[in-house]
Amino acid sequence: MTQLSAVPTREPATPGSTREHLSSPVTSAVLTIQSRMLAATRSFLSQHGFTEVLLPILGPVTDPGARGAKQVDIDYYGHRYKLMTSAILYKQASLTMFDKIYCIAPNVRLEPLDTTVTSRHLAEFHQIDVEMAGASRDQVMRLVEDLVGYVTTKVLADVAEEFERLGRDIQTLAQLSAGPFGRRTHTDAVATLRELGHPQNPDGEIDWAGEAMLSRLESRPFFVTDYPKGSRGFYDRENPQRPGFLRNFDLIAAEGYGELCSGSEREHDYAAIIARMRETGENPAKYAWYLEMVREGIPASAGFGIGVERLTRYIAGLDAVWQACAYPKIPGVVAP
Amino acid sequence: MTQLSAVPTREPATPGSTREHLSSPVTSAVLTIQSRMLAATRSFLSQHGFTEVLLPILGPVTDPGARGAKQVDIDYYGHRYKLMTSAILYKQASLTMFDKIYCIAPNVRLEPLDTTVTSRHLAEFHQIDVEMAGASRDQVMRLVEDLVGYVTTKVLADVAEEFERLGRDIQTLAQLSAGPFGRRTHTDAVATLRELGHPQNPDGEIDWAGEAMLSRLESRPFFVTDYPKGSRGFYDRENPQRPGFLRNFDLIAAEGYGELCSGSEREHDYAAIIARMRETGENPAKYAWYLEMVREGIPASAGFGIGVERLTRYIAGLDAVWQACAYPKIPGVVAP
Repeated sequence: MTQLSAVPTREPATPGSTREHLSSPVTSAVLTIQSRMLAATRSFLSQHGFTEVLLPILGPVTDPGARGAKQVDIDYYGHRYKLMTSAILYKQASLTMFDKIYCIAPNVRLEPLDTTVTSRHLAEFHQIDVEMAGASRDQVMRLVEDLVGYVTTKVLADVAEEFERLGRDIQTLAQLSAGPFGRRTHTDAVATLRELGHPQNPDGEIDWAGEAMLSRLESRPFFVTDYPKGSRGFYDRENPQRPGFLRNFDLIAAEGYGELCSGSEREHDYAAIIARMRETGENPAKYAWYLEMVREGIPASAGFGIGVERLTRYIAGLDAVWQACAYPKIPGVVAP
Repeated sequence: MTQLSAVPTREPATPGSTREHLSSPVTSAVLTIQSRMLAATRSFLSQHGFTEVLLPILGPVTDPGARGAKQVDIDYYGHRYKLMTSAILYKQASLTMFDKIYCIAPNVRLEPLDTTVTSRHLAEFHQIDVEMAGASRDQVMRLVEDLVGYVTTKVLADVAEEFERLGRDIQTLAQLSAGPFGRRTHTDAVATLRELGHPQNPDGEIDWAGEAMLSRLESRPFFVTDYPKGSRGFYDRENPQRPGFLRNFDLIAAEGYGELCSGSEREHDYAAIIARMRETGENPAKYAWYLEMVREGIPASAGFGIGVERLTRYIAGLDAVWQACAYPKIPGVVAP
């Protein structure tokens, strides 16, 4: 087994031409791993009673909480529609059919041009989108741990030779399935960053640089919980015991790879959702179909979305997320 | 087991509100069947050595061969991009990585308004997209037969009770896995239609009404092969032994359900593709990335795309294709 030299460096490069990228042995090793990850994910979710539902990629509104990214407008028979930035609205609505659902689908976010150099943004990517009626945040965080552990163990067993090809340290990966991930609050994470001299805003998202700093301090993925309200979309449930903070979480990879997954308990009360929409500057009138569902009743739930290409990057140990995609769209770069 | 009364009629209805559609026991039965169909499809393809590759839903160009449907333009960082009407260009290019690939992904086609009443068009739908390097048309037609047979047998075994709920005749379905499907040429199909008094154009696509007529004559799905050149995209390979006709096929369902799948051997020769693009009115300059791949060499191949919602409609025995989708987009109708 030849070890490829292209991967273990930490320097971002560019994909080069489509031909170069597709014919690179790194790409085929990575996409072989990814195809097994997808199969293992579906197998895990199916074993846990989740039903796969095919959700739309276009609709009159989409998730407004996509952290600075621009939504894509389309002309749908004379009406202004959006490409999905995430499936959150449809996930909540679908729980009126099945208690546990999932969907692995593409999302599009025109990320700002400063994300071109983060090595972890793609304008078009895929999410493993999971939602569970009646679940608490703790329940879905445990589900994330079990899912990531299962998938890693399974792909290591299935295609060990591909990891060898990539020079990925198997020992590090094996730790992924060794029990619960650490948990810290956003407040605690901010304090750590400020102690390290990083000027993290305590009322906002942890910025890309801060996330990478926290990530480099750890050897296993960890959860950051309880983000402040202003940082996320209207659908992340506010903590009634701690107003201004959300019952949500991110999963951050170790080794500097940054965020892999975001999740939360969801707002499902009509009045609470309207209030949160108004606070976040969203016009409820745009969300007619969703609010009609909510008004007639949708289940309480919790759920999450895992970035497929980001999880692939982490598991395969890649420099940049574009290496985890056959036809990568780096923000702002014209590409197939 | 209660049999639902909503399905066995042949009259198309409308989905009603999202709430009504999602809370209908027909919808949950149908989507349970669909989720098992998707699992069986992936399992079949994986067992046959196919690698799942996540393909883009937006790019500088898309499949121009989508039978009268309008493409959706988007503004991608100041460039005019398209939503995918099919993944054909990426499927061919991906064979430089893996010999056998598949992808189950959404496609968007703004179908003309006269398709609103066909009961078998959705502006947003999913395809099981399969491509195989070095394969002949016969090989992939046999793969389609085996896949449809396997999936039907598997879902009948897995969720028989859902078929009972829907009142779907199991005997009819069991015939799907009973050996090869019939084969007839486009020329022969046109002759039959004209004998029946249907004014089918011999040089074009079989129209919706004609397809439904042929479909109603049969009790098992059947292939129509060798469509005339003008009716399809530049990527369906012309028959060197019979110029003007393509080495392609459609699979048409029985019982009036119409087309389920289109496939072909592909053009992969640079000069032939340029010539076919010019004949079909396409500007080769737009296809820069694809033609660059072709010029440097892509494998000969054959492949197909099966409409997930259409196959679900047929297997579940539904009046209309929108019943096979959680959030159906009937052409021209504004919907979530």
